[in-house]
Amino acid sequence: MSDPTVGIIGGTGPQGRGLAMRFAMTGLPVIVGSRQDGKARDIAEGLNGALEKHGRPFHAIEGLENRAMAGKADYVFLTVPFENAERTVEGLSGAFRQGAVFVDVTVPLRFGKGDVQLEVPPEGSASRQLRKILHPSIPLCGAGKTLPAHVLEEISIPLDCDTFVFGDDKAAKGGLMELMARIPGLRPLDVGGLSAALTVEGMTALLIRLNRRYKSRLGRFGVVGLGA
Amino acid sequence: MSDPTVGIIGGTGPQGRGLAMRFAMTGLPVIVGSRQDGKARDIAEGLNGALEKHGRPFHAIEGLENRAMAGKADYVFLTVPFENAERTVEGLSGAFRQGAVFVDVTVPLRFGKGDVQLEVPPEGSASRQLRKILHPSIPLCGAGKTLPAHVLEEISIPLDCDTFVFGDDKAAKGGLMELMARIPGLRPLDVGGLSAALTVEGMTALLIRLNRRYKSRLGRFGVVGLGA
Repeated sequence: MSDPTVGIIGGTGPQGRGLAMRFAMTGLPVIVGSRQDGKARDIAEGLNGALEKHGRPFHAIEGLENRAMAGKADYVFLTVPFENAERTVEGLSGAFRQGAVFVDVTVPLRFGKGDVQLEVPPEGSASRQLRKILHPSIPLCGAGKTLPAHVLEEISIPLDCDTFVFGDDKAAKGGLMELMARIPGLRPLDVGGLSAALTVEGMTALLIRLNRRYKSRLGRFGVVGLGA
Repeated sequence: MSDPTVGIIGGTGPQGRGLAMRFAMTGLPVIVGSRQDGKARDIAEGLNGALEKHGRPFHAIEGLENRAMAGKADYVFLTVPFENAERTVEGLSGAFRQGAVFVDVTVPLRFGKGDVQLEVPPEGSASRQLRKILHPSIPLCGAGKTLPAHVLEEISIPLDCDTFVFGDDKAAKGGLMELMARIPGLRPLDVGGLSAALTVEGMTALLIRLNRRYKSRLGRFGVVGLGA
């Protein structure tokens, strides 16, 4: 495959901003999507400004309305809060280009006083829930769920961690693994099919809890000893 | 507290053998329990032989029938296969000493061809399932669930990883955290209450899957960036 185009929905949040910039720094074309075309352009402009300030080479980020973005992207990452995820996926119906892969980054969390819990959707995980809504012809994978937004967004911080990639479509997952591996300091690890989603989403809740307890915003998972 | 006594049920398995030897090397008194007193002594003798061969200082491991062990141990680690866990806990009824803490290390796994899945018990996790059986006066914590047996048992390999500790009784969990921290190269991380069990158990399945996929037996979790 020639250079794939990366689409990011949720470019206003730190996770979306971070992923967009990290991919732009690999030289790949990146499009941030929003419900309004003008807002998407504003987000893209802001991100390009931050990248210029950082001073390393990057591919300028484009901004487009969500459906127009989906028509141009090879990978569509969903980074919106989970409560908006279903509506957003419904809104993309029929807009994907041939061969596109949908990448779920959402985690349904419930923040209480001094604690955070995973809110398990009826289908058993966020990814399974979205799988039910997304047209069956679009492969759905999960990636980036445990990457802390604060680290992603602070592009001067080396990622230096692993990300857990899953999905039932092996070809789509393989392509996504290669895509994620382009980001320096990030090692994608294949943790199997969609059944892995619940654990990976639970790990995000666990990590946020650890960050709070240890007064950090930088905690992230690594697997040592794999020899990979 | 003066030096606590560590009890291990399941000393024939690699996880139990590994934990027993790792604790013995910290200088703590360790008792391995078995259903038969003679078998427990044999296990202890084997472990002491392996420790002697390794050549570092250690506290000689003792072997006792399970109930006698529970009457002497401050922490009782359960490392048997999950299918034997409920029966084992039932057999310990009334045998614990005052102030003892029960530490669940079990993970209910189902091994299929080329894959491993977590088998979620009716109560929602192995630890919750055992919590239901164990007398309410005995605090139950979880620890060591994601430590790969092969690494634990190979005492020449530095652990160099984290272990996720949880439990609803904060005092018991705090003591267990201190106990786990005595093992060199192991960092205990407090991931909250019993509700964390499902995710931690899922992480074990995920790790075994990674080890198989990357042809390793040494994969283990670490959290980077906590500053802890």
